[in-house]
Amino acid sequence: MADYVPPLRDMRFVFSRLLDGAGVDDDLLDAVLGEAGRFAAEAIAPLNAAANKAGCTRHQDGSVTTPPGFQEAYRQYREAGWGTLALPEEYGGQGLPHVMATAVEEFLNSACHAFNMYPGLTHGAVAVLEARGSEELKAAYLPRLVSGEWLGTMALTEPQAGTDLGLVRTRAAPNADGSFAVTGEKIFCSGGEHDLTDNIVHLALARLPDAPAGSRGISLFLVPKILPDGTRNAVSCGAIEHKMGLSGSATCAMHFEGATGWLVGELNAGLAAMFIMMNAARLSCGVQGVAQAELAYQKAAAYALERRQGRAAGSAEEADPLIVHPDVRRLLMDARAFTEGFRALVLWTAWQIDQGNDDLVALLTPVIKAYGTDRGFETAVAMQQIFGGHGYITETGVEQIVRDARAPMLYEGANGVQALDLVGRKLLRDGGQTVERFIALVEGQCEDADETLGFLATPLLEAAHEAREAALWLLSQGKADPDALGAGSYAFLQLIGVLTTGWMWLNLAKAALPDAGSDPFCTAKLATARHYALHALPQVSALRRKVEAGAEALMALPPEAFLRD
Amino acid sequence: MADYVPPLRDMRFVFSRLLDGAGVDDDLLDAVLGEAGRFAAEAIAPLNAAANKAGCTRHQDGSVTTPPGFQEAYRQYREAGWGTLALPEEYGGQGLPHVMATAVEEFLNSACHAFNMYPGLTHGAVAVLEARGSEELKAAYLPRLVSGEWLGTMALTEPQAGTDLGLVRTRAAPNADGSFAVTGEKIFCSGGEHDLTDNIVHLALARLPDAPAGSRGISLFLVPKILPDGTRNAVSCGAIEHKMGLSGSATCAMHFEGATGWLVGELNAGLAAMFIMMNAARLSCGVQGVAQAELAYQKAAAYALERRQGRAAGSAEEADPLIVHPDVRRLLMDARAFTEGFRALVLWTAWQIDQGNDDLVALLTPVIKAYGTDRGFETAVAMQQIFGGHGYITETGVEQIVRDARAPMLYEGANGVQALDLVGRKLLRDGGQTVERFIALVEGQCEDADETLGFLATPLLEAAHEAREAALWLLSQGKADPDALGAGSYAFLQLIGVLTTGWMWLNLAKAALPDAGSDPFCTAKLATARHYALHALPQVSALRRKVEAGAEALMALPPEAFLRD
Repeated sequence: MADYVPPLRDMRFVFSRLLDGAGVDDDLLDAVLGEAGRFAAEAIAPLNAAANKAGCTRHQDGSVTTPPGFQEAYRQYREAGWGTLALPEEYGGQGLPHVMATAVEEFLNSACHAFNMYPGLTHGAVAVLEARGSEELKAAYLPRLVSGEWLGTMALTEPQAGTDLGLVRTRAAPNADGSFAVTGEKIFCSGGEHDLTDNIVHLALARLPDAPAGSRGISLFLVPKILPDGTRNAVSCGAIEHKMGLSGSATCAMHFEGATGWLVGELNAGLAAMFIMMNAARLSCGVQGVAQAELAYQKAAAYALERRQGRAAGSAEEADPLIVHPDVRRLLMDARAFTEGFRALVLWTAWQIDQGNDDLVALLTPVIKAYGTDRGFETAVAMQQIFGGHGYITETGVEQIVRDARAPMLYEGANGVQALDLVGRKLLRDGGQTVERFIALVEGQCEDADETLGFLATPLLEAAHEAREAALWLLSQGKADPDALGAGSYAFLQLIGVLTTGWMWLNLAKAALPDAGSDPFCTAKLATARHYALHALPQVSALRRKVEAGAEALMALPPEAFLRD
Repeated sequence: MADYVPPLRDMRFVFSRLLDGAGVDDDLLDAVLGEAGRFAAEAIAPLNAAANKAGCTRHQDGSVTTPPGFQEAYRQYREAGWGTLALPEEYGGQGLPHVMATAVEEFLNSACHAFNMYPGLTHGAVAVLEARGSEELKAAYLPRLVSGEWLGTMALTEPQAGTDLGLVRTRAAPNADGSFAVTGEKIFCSGGEHDLTDNIVHLALARLPDAPAGSRGISLFLVPKILPDGTRNAVSCGAIEHKMGLSGSATCAMHFEGATGWLVGELNAGLAAMFIMMNAARLSCGVQGVAQAELAYQKAAAYALERRQGRAAGSAEEADPLIVHPDVRRLLMDARAFTEGFRALVLWTAWQIDQGNDDLVALLTPVIKAYGTDRGFETAVAMQQIFGGHGYITETGVEQIVRDARAPMLYEGANGVQALDLVGRKLLRDGGQTVERFIALVEGQCEDADETLGFLATPLLEAAHEAREAALWLLSQGKADPDALGAGSYAFLQLIGVLTTGWMWLNLAKAALPDAGSDPFCTAKLATARHYALHALPQVSALRRKVEAGAEALMALPPEAFLRD
């Protein structure tokens, strides 16, 4: 069995029938997706298990060796231009739509998430520099970041400052020449050191000596590993973390010891600049959730067709393949419903960015990040379950997916923070207008749906009504009682996650309807849409009740009551 | 911070107020729980992280070295008699109630699940031998298994026979002296080889040459590592598995090469005999779920009180402890609601066994196994989330809990199999009578509850009604359509899991009511009961709808449609 089969048919279906081709002609789309899928499956996927085993090695001098094969794979990746698809032509990119890069990103994350962590943050770094960098910085760094000659990192977190970046202590002192001397300790810096490129470009948050306290006193600096004059900058890797998974990705503790850096954007406006990069990274997390779920699904489906245990009712066989058991099918259909529905959502959202329709993108970003990574992990766990005891054994490969898929729920803003972003910045700030527009959009499509799609459109319409009620509850309670808003935030995010995935299923089902019956692929789409209606949408009422449960019971106990005696 | 604090107060509350002291006087109960808790916290818990790192080592000669400290810890465990609490006095045990041994088992599993895997299966082996063994076997093996001088294993699984033990191929050929020569390959044999005891007693499933095909041709054999004459038997460890977690527990592939064994029970009745052991092991899985959730909860609660990130509304601090955030509290309250409610359920069930009330035990066994391990794992994952990125780092310790807690969902019958047991053997077989008795019991307690407990009794009564409807649906559909039964099995198990935990919360709340307000412990019980009512019970309607979704959409696709192209 292949390690990984790129889901080309499914991807093309979304592009052609949901995104109207995404402004790219069919031949180009087929060529890019086909080639990228082949590269991911043939050059990258075979590295995944070995990379998990070998991990990264930090040497005495602070240099870091990546797993076997990563250097050669990265060379091929650069040569083929997989990192430059959607980057600006002005700096050497291919200027293709983001939605195409998003599709390719899914393939690469399925093939080897740890490998893709190295180039993965560079797109965000390019976006920040393009939007906020000075002309000098752009000229010096963008062409080489775009070409992949150099890679970028985010150096944000410090031991005392994770979610709360206002607590950053790294200092930046002005030098006479306009640069800054950056001093401090950063942790959890993915790809902070490696052997894939000669230079590494850190985007680091730091604070000027006279900066205001808290988040309004943070600035963003570009700090290269190698300075423009070719000398080594005073930034080095002090350690790499031992982690639950993604061991092929070097998670570095970085020492900045008076390292030379250049301001990106305005002084004290670092957090806002960093969010350009962070929002891109958050959408990428959703892609990773789908990618890991897809990989786990493929392994489990193949196992379910091959492994014989137990019998179907009335079977005369000694044992039948697992796929005859309805409860195994339930797990596989749940996985299909998530991966195909969420893939469509992520691609649709990327296409909105390409078209400059940012209205819903900001709303959907925390949902894609948190709901996508939660469900990606849960899907991996469910697929592991199909293997029984064999799923717990390293050799089978599925336990690695579970460990790897756990990371994106925690990084780029832990998922609880995404829920606060959703109810605070995205719901409350505009008085619920964007959320209402979104719900009305879903309702409109439900009402317009062909009556043969009533099996989905009817419960989805009901779910949209419940989402509105939940939103109105948060709006009415949240202003006066921030704890009520926080208490309901996660259930609200989950509710919107179920709703948006269901909305995508309505679109997928509509697109498949003309060929259902004649084309097995479209028949399967309808069956999976039906499964979603029956197995996912019933959660909505429960989630609404949780949103409306309020904060009183949560906040009742004094903190010390949480400790055991 | 201590690695682990035994939840003595909570345990004693269950014993004294729910189990009426469990027939043991208070001083003895306090002494045993107090000492066992101290032993678990001081002698065992410090081994857990190092055991995870060191794992087990198999040497060229097939011998296996356990992690550092395990030998000494086991010596102390034996000396203190922690393994003999509920074993029969006739063979040297202490003859105390099972419910006390269950409490101690929770402490030990929290302290180091991998360590407890070694003695963990011996209780089941003792039960099988006591019930089915010949007098000669009992005399030769029971005293030493009871004393812990020797340990027992279950050697059931083979590469082609996991869930479906009817596929077992290991052969047993009769010897002239009445013993049998056992030949075959067993896998996933926990503690199949180790260095804690001189002898290891395998209970192995095998098939006589002329045995009927399938599950009616399986017999159970006792196969010791060392024969009664002191020579080495032809059974050896061929490999130990590399696993996702529990690396301190040696999961062995065992070669039986004409090993001498003795029949336990009747010929061809091995599966039924093995189920004596298996049912005990399944209840132990539920204990492990609670134990891992408790450990993860303790770590997360301590972190939430200490780690400062973000601010409470209106706070003047630079940053407040995480515990001020409602969404962090939601995760902690969910964890309390599961651990405390399920602990009560597991202890209550063990006490029913002690009293010989087997009526509900058989019904609750698959629920305790599957729902307890699912929720134990989910709780560990949720507690890891509270740590943010730090939760992904090995050093923090919480990621190990997640990896370890994943195992019990897969072993002793994967959780999907438990759901089939519930709907098949426990619901359908007696036409729903036992389930109806249980639901009526819950309903009666809801109706009798003090009106101040209406916040829980009212939605719980509604949940019981929904459980009845779901059961009736399965009964009416399941006879004619086994696929409908299988399709709804998992949601039904989850529904019964939510219901039984809620029923325990009603009992806990009732017991705490007199002292709520005056005793902070009892106040917290009421607050947690309220949380359960608001956050767990709303799922019931959704689960009922999933039960009643039927098999049609699940079974619609042909098997090959599950493969990607």
